[in-house]
Amino acid sequence: MELIDKMLAGDRLSLARVISFIEDRGEHLRKLVDEIYPKTGNAFVLGITGPPGAGKSTVTDKLVAEIRRTGKRVAVIAIDPSSPFSGGAILGDRIRMQQHSGDPGVYIRSLGTRGKHGGLSQSSKEVVMALDAAGFDWIIVETAGVGQTELDVLKLGHAVCVVLVPESGDSIQVMKAGLMEIADLFVVNKCDRPEADKLVKELVNMIGMAHDDAAKWNIPVIQTQALFNQGVGELFTQVQAYRDFAHKHGTIERKRAAFIEEEILEIIWSKMSRDVRRKMAESNGQKLLAKVLEKKATPYEAARKSQYLSKKL
Amino acid sequence: MELIDKMLAGDRLSLARVISFIEDRGEHLRKLVDEIYPKTGNAFVLGITGPPGAGKSTVTDKLVAEIRRTGKRVAVIAIDPSSPFSGGAILGDRIRMQQHSGDPGVYIRSLGTRGKHGGLSQSSKEVVMALDAAGFDWIIVETAGVGQTELDVLKLGHAVCVVLVPESGDSIQVMKAGLMEIADLFVVNKCDRPEADKLVKELVNMIGMAHDDAAKWNIPVIQTQALFNQGVGELFTQVQAYRDFAHKHGTIERKRAAFIEEEILEIIWSKMSRDVRRKMAESNGQKLLAKVLEKKATPYEAARKSQYLSKKL
Repeated sequence: MELIDKMLAGDRLSLARVISFIEDRGEHLRKLVDEIYPKTGNAFVLGITGPPGAGKSTVTDKLVAEIRRTGKRVAVIAIDPSSPFSGGAILGDRIRMQQHSGDPGVYIRSLGTRGKHGGLSQSSKEVVMALDAAGFDWIIVETAGVGQTELDVLKLGHAVCVVLVPESGDSIQVMKAGLMEIADLFVVNKCDRPEADKLVKELVNMIGMAHDDAAKWNIPVIQTQALFNQGVGELFTQVQAYRDFAHKHGTIERKRAAFIEEEILEIIWSKMSRDVRRKMAESNGQKLLAKVLEKKATPYEAARKSQYLSKKL
Repeated sequence: MELIDKMLAGDRLSLARVISFIEDRGEHLRKLVDEIYPKTGNAFVLGITGPPGAGKSTVTDKLVAEIRRTGKRVAVIAIDPSSPFSGGAILGDRIRMQQHSGDPGVYIRSLGTRGKHGGLSQSSKEVVMALDAAGFDWIIVETAGVGQTELDVLKLGHAVCVVLVPESGDSIQVMKAGLMEIADLFVVNKCDRPEADKLVKELVNMIGMAHDDAAKWNIPVIQTQALFNQGVGELFTQVQAYRDFAHKHGTIERKRAAFIEEEILEIIWSKMSRDVRRKMAESNGQKLLAKVLEKKATPYEAARKSQYLSKKL
């Protein structure tokens, strides 16, 4: 495909078109991803999450600058919450990142989360593949962590950095929220604020308690004031340390396999969902529905009787 | 099932246990929902959504009081955003509703959105069925509207009320967000604030533009100060007017059919997802995955070759 060739050659407009194509989930997507896939496998994918106002975008912004200092290319995908009520904050964040806009080694793109059931998870995986194939060494996936889907997306990266601020609640909440299960690094941003020391101490204690395996990565808690570029160098050092650790212990390979496994499953699921919905709209499906509406069968009975609405499916 | 009999007889503890059972998606769920389903079909389901801070819970609270004045029973399901960072605000809202806690005609319950892929949509439908079977005349589903799943849940109700506040942005945003497609009623809450008149006017204009069908419901814009119980009586009158209109025009029947159709589809999908994931974990699935990891096949090729990993599926 000419579009893919151009993208692989570094053409940004072609990359943008490929990503839009993936987001739109068009008919020939399969062909496109088939061409992209063999070129993937080189990028390191870092997820950044945290509550609204924690300064995720600022941390990302400064981290991009650190990465660029090493000469490596970096792409940022910002996953926008799908709330119809969300304001322009995210767009504002993106505008702030315009300092990188003249730099061909940086690519920034927002992905919406609206759309079909489960679509985001598959789209973001395929966008990550496209950026990987396009030669970006680092891919940062920034999410507001507002939904299960976003957490699923994060889990499919190679490392997860959770950005907190002193006022974002205590560590008990972090524990309850299952963040200990996904965090490879913690950042306490705006660390000049009151209660920062308390939060750091609580996080360190919590990590100590969870740490039962000697061969396990020792999750660091990094204090930053990202807006003033303080602590971000240390964060980047720790991210690189994690990357080396994860390579050495086979974690990257395992995460890559999980990523691909989910991609295959989602392709299968999405085809199945469409097939079943189509069958349901046909006469047998509608007869079945009528039976349930007349209370001659329950939804579970109908689902079983349907044999998935087609034996040949 | 004894539990169901007790729930149908009005036992609140049994109802609470049934709802927990539905949320946990346990093994015998099918049997439970099979028993509940034939008793459903009487409740009117009203979705309430809006941005954080718009006063959804207060509007709900006062609406509950209006409904109780008619002697009807009402249940409220509050769908909590699944963000691991969400604070205690929602719990606080629920506590505020304790004024109804001694009233056997009111039942309030929060549903979490964390858990399995697509689980919330199915769970909330089945919880609505349980509350319907338990004899509640009104079921209010309150969501923060933070995700596609929540909007899907709202669409499965019989009416949707969108609560806005003057500072929640202009009407352009409402239009862009697709709220015009789901709203049957708009509430401008905290209508004493500046810009309230402007928002009301914009909404009215927007509704006028979208209104191309004479037989269509004329979406009202109701101004409230819910905290001081102002305008909520008018809101309830309009909700009832909508209900009568929707019954007359067959909208309720169509929405009920769509609700049941989605329930059947989700039962099928969830079974299929589990089956495919299991197959993928078996040796043929893992061989297929290995081939993709070695780049001897692409994910899409693997998904097709798999024939969904089992011809008999």
